[in-house]
Amino acid sequence: MDKGHLFVVSGPSGAGKGTICQKIVEQTDVELSISMTTRDPRSFEEHGANYYFVSKEEFLETIENNGLLEYAEVYGNFYGTPKKLVMEKLNAGRDVILEIDIQGAMKVKQSYPGGVFIFILPPSMTELRKRITGRGSESEDAINMRLGETLKEVSYIDKYDYCVVNGELDEAVNRVQAIIIAEHSKVSESIYHLIKKYEEEI
Amino acid sequence: MDKGHLFVVSGPSGAGKGTICQKIVEQTDVELSISMTTRDPRSFEEHGANYYFVSKEEFLETIENNGLLEYAEVYGNFYGTPKKLVMEKLNAGRDVILEIDIQGAMKVKQSYPGGVFIFILPPSMTELRKRITGRGSESEDAINMRLGETLKEVSYIDKYDYCVVNGELDEAVNRVQAIIIAEHSKVSESIYHLIKKYEEEI
Repeated sequence: MDKGHLFVVSGPSGAGKGTICQKIVEQTDVELSISMTTRDPRSFEEHGANYYFVSKEEFLETIENNGLLEYAEVYGNFYGTPKKLVMEKLNAGRDVILEIDIQGAMKVKQSYPGGVFIFILPPSMTELRKRITGRGSESEDAINMRLGETLKEVSYIDKYDYCVVNGELDEAVNRVQAIIIAEHSKVSESIYHLIKKYEEEI
Repeated sequence: MDKGHLFVVSGPSGAGKGTICQKIVEQTDVELSISMTTRDPRSFEEHGANYYFVSKEEFLETIENNGLLEYAEVYGNFYGTPKKLVMEKLNAGRDVILEIDIQGAMKVKQSYPGGVFIFILPPSMTELRKRITGRGSESEDAINMRLGETLKEVSYIDKYDYCVVNGELDEAVNRVQAIIIAEHSKVSESIYHLIKKYEEEI
């Protein structure tokens, strides 16, 4: 059986990577990777659906056992991608999609270089500013700093396999779907099973 | 502006590469590469649509001028892919699709390694036998020889980027379309124009 693919969907905040991943999970057989965190669950969050909520001890133990594809500490809380769950799905032939920021994606690239790395871009900085402003939670200064940060992040694009500009959401989702299909159409080990079958038939 | 891509669609006779290319040309902006030949046109064939019909002198001159991406002589007639026409389209940012047998594809790979090479496979040898028999023009011996030939041809698959099994035509066409979209989503020079624009906006 074919091994599944790990699709790492990454990009600056506001580019829309989360929405794209959600649509992909809804419209295809690709499964979302669920992160592990030490932060407290919010009222609407479910263990195993939004996150795996674990104690700091358990998280540190998982790090020690080399059990994470990547992890980071943000404001005193740990977040990470459990390796075992992802590998189980891939080995069972199922595709996994992982939504993650650029720093995290670069760590995943080290721990799982066989992943397919997709960078989601905003159509323009003007549009990105509009999207961030629309969320209404940040000051003008904070937004300007964020856009400067975005430019730095975008310079990592050459570490990625694909890039998708998210202007129209449906168009961007279709592109990611096309990438998933194309990756499964690459000439790989799996095709030799079919050729073997040809030989037996003749 | 982005350069177009050359999609080289190849595979054993009976796999359905011709029908797939035709559908792609109908359903997308991709343009078909028209071959040049010295054979006589059949009643329904049009110069510039099915083939460019030329004299043997003109063909040999084109070879001498290094004007063909590949060529072959079959039963005393020459067939080839005019380089200038393909390059003009690619340079104008248009995609070109080229339907060709495996030997021809291998020559194109030497003359234009930047092409995207797609191998069309039949779902099984049993199905391929059925398709060839359905055409009704060949003896059992000739068909058996052809299937043996197909097995040899299939061994070239590792020189290709993608393979598409043509069981259901629509499904195969969708896969080729996905490959075209994915190839245009690869991180390449062209994305740096967008990043340059980001910098100007900020």
